[in-house]
Parts: sequence; structure tokens; C-alpha cells
Amino acid sequence: MPIDPTSDIEITAFEWVPSFAQGQVRDLRPRWACEEYGLAYKVRLISAIERPEWYFADQPWGQVPFMQDGDVRVFESGATLIHLAEKSGALPPPGSQQRASVMSWLLAAFNSIEPSVMEFVNCTFFSRKEEWAPLRRPSLTSTLTDRLARLEVALDDRQWLGGEFSIADIAMITVLRALPDPALLPAGLSAYVDRGCARPAFGLALAAQLAPFAEHDPRSTAKQGA
Amino acid sequence: MPIDPTSDIEITAFEWVPSFAQGQVRDLRPRWACEEYGLAYKVRLISAIERPEWYFADQPWGQVPFMQDGDVRVFESGATLIHLAEKSGALPPPGSQQRASVMSWLLAAFNSIEPSVMEFVNCTFFSRKEEWAPLRRPSLTSTLTDRLARLEVALDDRQWLGGEFSIADIAMITVLRALPDPALLPAGLSAYVDRGCARPAFGLALAAQLAPFAEHDPRSTAKQGA
Repeated sequence: MPIDPTSDIEITAFEWVPSFAQGQVRDLRPRWACEEYGLAYKVRLISAIERPEWYFADQPWGQVPFMQDGDVRVFESGATLIHLAEKSGALPPPGSQQRASVMSWLLAAFNSIEPSVMEFVNCTFFSRKEEWAPLRRPSLTSTLTDRLARLEVALDDRQWLGGEFSIADIAMITVLRALPDPALLPAGLSAYVDRGCARPAFGLALAAQLAPFAEHDPRSTAKQGA
Repeated sequence: MPIDPTSDIEITAFEWVPSFAQGQVRDLRPRWACEEYGLAYKVRLISAIERPEWYFADQPWGQVPFMQDGDVRVFESGATLIHLAEKSGALPPPGSQQRASVMSWLLAAFNSIEPSVMEFVNCTFFSRKEEWAPLRRPSLTSTLTDRLARLEVALDDRQWLGGEFSIADIAMITVLRALPDPALLPAGLSAYVDRGCARPAFGLALAAQLAPFAEHDPRSTAKQGA
């Protein structure tokens, strides 16, 4: 589904981020859901470097994505996924095991896996030169490794966490592919991430996130201005 | 709503936890929702100390709560809250701003606030004797303080995050009251937590979590056996 400036759905994303974050920014999640469900969307770009103060009224932490669907305002990527799945009719009916499984795994991605992954990224990348980081790394690696081993067992031989592909997989796969060290992923999870990233909707969402970065690269702007 | 052994809803909780965790275990969340919505529930107690291996088939990380509602199985406390709110008709209709707000703030509690709170608890309590812990504390406190200041601004002068009391408040208040240092909570959030904990449903849920602990205290069992 191409980006359509007349769509009711508007996703706020960053106009540019440094190379390490390109393809990892969380607007990838609602973009991916829109592509899966055939929902056209438009994009509002803001600066990640000079985060506008007015934007905190839309998104309490100044992060992306923020999503507006007509008059309805949604923040937190997990909530945008729920909104889009409900809008498209892709969420199984309330009270069903299918819906409970989607919600359980969606929350698992956001509350039981992503926090360890993010702290690992912080420890090994953003804060790697801090005195605490190399000291923290062994216990954090152990926590994360244990959690991922349990996740691989729980996925078992299913293709997707809830049986059918769902927003829970969009959440979990975008969490797992943020891991900077692929060797940490057990084989079953590595194959699961590859399966998700091979979906055409993922490829379209990724390309759409990356598209504006070249034009808004502050170095090329500086070069043009010189 | 009293605990009712004939209820379709069964919440798995720990039979006993050390004093620092009493009143903080996450089965408090679905218990609180059941009390708010007038849903009777029964309880299955397991050991936190010798976590039974079969339980990992119910809950991938061996944590509580796990919830079964008839044949429907739900894990992750956030997913139990969504299930109970939908079951009771307490969730605003799909597509409404009210529902989007509840979901946005629910996910915010689980993905944007709880991870920092939990790492702070780890740093200042569980891992306090580790070499990395005192070194990590300043940056972690700074992250957390900034996030909480933004949350206080976002709550503004409302009583509850989504306008009406909802599962988002159950999530956020149980996250915030886990903070070991009350001085970290800005005044507006401190009053918000107090408002939540003053609700009769909270008091009933808390008492129900605490009730089995005396009977299952391993020290008193040892004493009886002596």
C-alpha cells in the first residue's frame, strides 16, 4: 500500500537518524501493520536532533511513532499496532483464545523481552564507554540469554507466536532484530526473525522509513550550503 | 467481589514471597481488575522458591500471573488486564479516542515506565552489592527522573490517565508504587498513586494477595516441623 497524502492515518516519524538507528526506529511497527492490512497512511516528519517541544504534547517522551487516525490520537508503538489491527478487522474476536494469545505475546514483546534487549543495546553500544557497562554486561547477557532460550521453547515449531501472523509478531520481530549481536539469538528465533523480515509488507515498511533519510541527512545539507 | 472457587477465572499466584515482594507481585493487577469490575475469581497457588518446571508451559518465563478464563489462557499481566476489561465491557469501543487513550497509557506503563523502574529496583536493591550498581545509579536515576517529570506533565490535572479510571491506571499505579524511593515521585504522581491505592478494589486485591503468605511462610512451616 503506497503512502497516500489523503489518508486519515498519519504516522509521525523522524526525518533523519544516524546510520545505527536507520531501519530500527519504531515507526517501522505501525508502517508494517499498515502494509500488512492494506491501510494507506501519510507521514509527518520531525527532527530527531532538535526534538520540537510542542511534540511532547503529542507524545509524552518525545519519541516516535505518534499516530493520528482522523481525530483519534495514539502513542506507544504497541497501542498503534492494536489500533490498526482492530481497525482492519485483523484482531480475533474478544474472548477467544486467538485474541488472548495475540495480546499475551504482544505484551510479552514489550514488557518481557524488549526491556532486556534495550538495556543490552545501551550497555554494549550507547554507554559502552561508561565504567559500569563492561561490569554489567555478563549478568545482563545471562538474563537475556535465558529469556531468549525460553522464548525459543515457547515458539516451538510454530511459524508465528499466535499461530497466525499477527501484531504480536510485528512487535516481537522488531524487538529481536534490534539485538546488536546476532549470535545471541538461538537458531529457532533467528529463523523466526528471517521469516518475518521476508514478508513483503516488512520490506515496504522498511523502505518507507529509510526513504527520507538521504534527503534530510544533516551532512549533505551542510555540504549543499557550503 | 470475594474469591469464589466455582468461578471460571483462575489466577495463578505465589503461595509465599519474601517480605520485600509482598504486595508487589503482579497478580495484584488482574486481582485489582476483577475487584473493579465485579468479576469473581479463584486462585491457584504455586511455589516461587521451587518454581515447578511444568509451569513454564503456562507462563514462558515462570512468572505470575498466569490466568485461565474457562478454556482461554492468558499470560503477561497487561494481557490479563485487557482480557478482563473486555470481558466486563469496561473497555471503550474500538475506534474511539477513549479506547486509544487507555491502550496508549497501558502500553506506556509497561514499555516506557516499568523498564526504568525495574532496572532502578535491580540497581538499588537486588544487585546493590554488585560493582556496577553504584556506578550505574546516577545515569539511571536521571533517565527515570526525566521520564517521571514528563509523566506528571502529561497527567496534568486529570484524576486518571485516560480521563475515566481504567486498566491503564491499574498498570501505571502498580508500576509507580514499586519504586523503592518515594522521593523520586513528583508530587502530582504521588497524589495519583495515593488516589489509586485508596480505591476499595485496590485494598481488596492487596489483602487477597497477602492472605496466603502467613500460612505458607517457609520459616513458620519449619518451626511447626521442629
